Amino acid sequence: MALVVIGGVAAGLSAAARARRIDPRLEITVLEKGPVISYGACGLPYFVEGRVREASQLIVYTPEYFRKERRIQVRTGARVISIAHPRREVVLESGERIRYENLVIATGARPDALGIAGAREPHVFTLHTLDDAERLRGFLREKRPRRAVVIGAGYIGVEAADALRRNGLQVTIVERSEDVLLRRDPLLTAAVRHQLEAHGVDLRCGVSVDAIEPASAGGIACDLVVLSAGFRPNVEIAAEAGVEMGRSSAIRTDDRMETNLRGVYAAGDCAEVNHRVTNRPAYIPLGTTANKAGRVAGANAAGGRARFPGIVGTSIVGIFGVGFATTGFSMEQARAEGFTPVSARIEASTRPRYYGGSQTTVELVADRATRRLIGGTVIGEDGAAGRINVIAGALQARMLVEEFEGLDLAYSPPFAATWDPLLIAAQQLMKDL
Amino acid sequence: MALVVIGGVAAGLSAAARARRIDPRLEITVLEKGPVISYGACGLPYFVEGRVREASQLIVYTPEYFRKERRIQVRTGARVISIAHPRREVVLESGERIRYENLVIATGARPDALGIAGAREPHVFTLHTLDDAERLRGFLREKRPRRAVVIGAGYIGVEAADALRRNGLQVTIVERSEDVLLRRDPLLTAAVRHQLEAHGVDLRCGVSVDAIEPASAGGIACDLVVLSAGFRPNVEIAAEAGVEMGRSSAIRTDDRMETNLRGVYAAGDCAEVNHRVTNRPAYIPLGTTANKAGRVAGANAAGGRARFPGIVGTSIVGIFGVGFATTGFSMEQARAEGFTPVSARIEASTRPRYYGGSQTTVELVADRATRRLIGGTVIGEDGAAGRINVIAGALQARMLVEEFEGLDLAYSPPFAATWDPLLIAAQQLMKDL
Repeated sequence: MALVVIGGVAAGLSAAARARRIDPRLEITVLEKGPVISYGACGLPYFVEGRVREASQLIVYTPEYFRKERRIQVRTGARVISIAHPRREVVLESGERIRYENLVIATGARPDALGIAGAREPHVFTLHTLDDAERLRGFLREKRPRRAVVIGAGYIGVEAADALRRNGLQVTIVERSEDVLLRRDPLLTAAVRHQLEAHGVDLRCGVSVDAIEPASAGGIACDLVVLSAGFRPNVEIAAEAGVEMGRSSAIRTDDRMETNLRGVYAAGDCAEVNHRVTNRPAYIPLGTTANKAGRVAGANAAGGRARFPGIVGTSIVGIFGVGFATTGFSMEQARAEGFTPVSARIEASTRPRYYGGSQTTVELVADRATRRLIGGTVIGEDGAAGRINVIAGALQARMLVEEFEGLDLAYSPPFAATWDPLLIAAQQLMKDL
Repeated sequence: MALVVIGGVAAGLSAAARARRIDPRLEITVLEKGPVISYGACGLPYFVEGRVREASQLIVYTPEYFRKERRIQVRTGARVISIAHPRREVVLESGERIRYENLVIATGARPDALGIAGAREPHVFTLHTLDDAERLRGFLREKRPRRAVVIGAGYIGVEAADALRRNGLQVTIVERSEDVLLRRDPLLTAAVRHQLEAHGVDLRCGVSVDAIEPASAGGIACDLVVLSAGFRPNVEIAAEAGVEMGRSSAIRTDDRMETNLRGVYAAGDCAEVNHRVTNRPAYIPLGTTANKAGRVAGANAAGGRARFPGIVGTSIVGIFGVGFATTGFSMEQARAEGFTPVSARIEASTRPRYYGGSQTTVELVADRATRRLIGGTVIGEDGAAGRINVIAGALQARMLVEEFEGLDLAYSPPFAATWDPLLIAAQQLMKDL
């Protein structure tokens, strides 16, 4: 048996490590096109900010570690240019061919330049690899830019804006759609706008940038551009090999993370996963999902039996110290998915007033027909991750609003209010159901 | 219709307020034996500490508020000495009789002195009412005690120890049982001991105090004693009226919070509730439960229809900045409840190393036969409340360990690690199942 994994970051390494656990004797090779493996891509904005001092701190494991500790061969600078599935071979750029019995495709995604003219100018950066972040940090140090335009208000866009602002730059974010954070949600967008503007970052939604000039982008004067307008899954070699794509144009898999080709698995930012709220495929590329789906792909590719039941779409992003967390669907997304949603939004203190709490916003979205919770938003300095995770658990458990309202949540003045904001939101939602 | 509520703190006022919502015309009277209503009893240790400056800050609502805003008559200093249920009357200490059609008993609990000799000495304090806390604070200010003994290592005991230590006293906690925080759990006890000792508080378990002397308690020299050895439900007048008690000797109710007497409801620290993990009655007096059960009692007493499905036993206590949170059952408790439990305990970082996380401990307990989660512990400075709440939700949803392992939890470096400690604990537990 030989397992080949294409891609040496989150999904690929999770797959390889899990495969080793399942089969101690399996020959496992990981092929990574870049110079390093196992880096925390989500940490790049904090390296740009300067909070993380060295890019190398973002590297979790080295190829040597995998070789020695896991007996997994990891090759960097090994770009796969095609998959010859009938012969069970991958072909490297060098011409070398490597045989596999089972294959895990974890080729990730790449920034989408949206065909913007000038995207390759020297003052234009993406934040996708360690190299990207080091180049940007070097540019900040050497060129001392004063005005930045960030194209795209997804997670990386707002994190980059936060990082650049903390470095003293004037920052404008330009977003094509009317909403931020990849979520159709005017209330969330308004809250993010409020927080960005309170910290001097200008947010312009509904504005497309067609061209980047040396001293401006989309007509906004600047000497630095961060391109974070979206992702495109790296699926070309898979598609050429006959791997089928889903409607999102990422790779379609079953719940074992197997593609339409037997023995070929896919996971991570190149693949769809099941959305547990709708039980339909979704493309929501995130590191947590990559790790989980990668583990499942690796287990099955090594002869184990594992299922990935899917995600509910949970994420959080920090903007100048405030967490903006979402799970499931917003009202507008829920409508688009065919629900008849109803929502309640409250603001409440995270602790008793006498102890000095901070305010947090909670929005819950339910399906009117079934009374089932299908989404939520939590915004706050304090406990946003914990609260969104409670909602995420409820979505997975298909909890009704009345069940959620009865949750036995922890209370003590230093940590929580007697009625947690989650429960106040549920009580409010019960009135409208 | 007339509703009488005995008790004007958490459960009683929740009942009265809810009853008003259900029936705008109902005549509602709340009888409180003490001088004030609606005080945050859980805030008393923070008033002793000095963090909360004025005892009055702990009062949430006044009788005037209820009179004006809710048209609820609230009488303080109104001690009920008996319930004449056949005549539907409560009898006050003054001899006055008040008629009811429906009655809510929310008489709470009182500190249990355990028959300790000397418990009424002037340097002995409980922490149950505002008056208790003001007396203790006055004693600290005027007598400048240097050494304190805290009898009982429940929530109030450890919080009082923390508060006194922060006031510069030498503090020894003496606990009758082998364990702290009302939970048979040697690992939790060890962690609490470690934290207390790191902050100079001595914890002695398995030691009974029989007598308090003017300058010592249980043989330990001291000039201040806090008696926090447990609670005893205030059920005497209910019992005399024919209300049945459960095995815990608190009032037994059905899931509408109705007692064996039709039209007589009970909620709060005087009543049992259903434990959702076992579906058996339990006596776990906490403010959160009092509020929820009180709402249900009030709704039903006003002619509405509400159910209280119960609790899972979630709580958290802060000890010198670290949260100790538990839900469901510990290993030993689970065994006593008839489960064949299995547990996993891990320590992990709450954030990526490069961002600077803190360590947190997570223990999960599952039932081997059903693979269902039945308990958990989270200890940490960061996110203990949020994490225990996720486990609490899972207990309520009767989640299996493998379902919990697949939770889609939020990740971003400022807030969480890619693999949340909860998921690492679940993975560990899967290996042992």
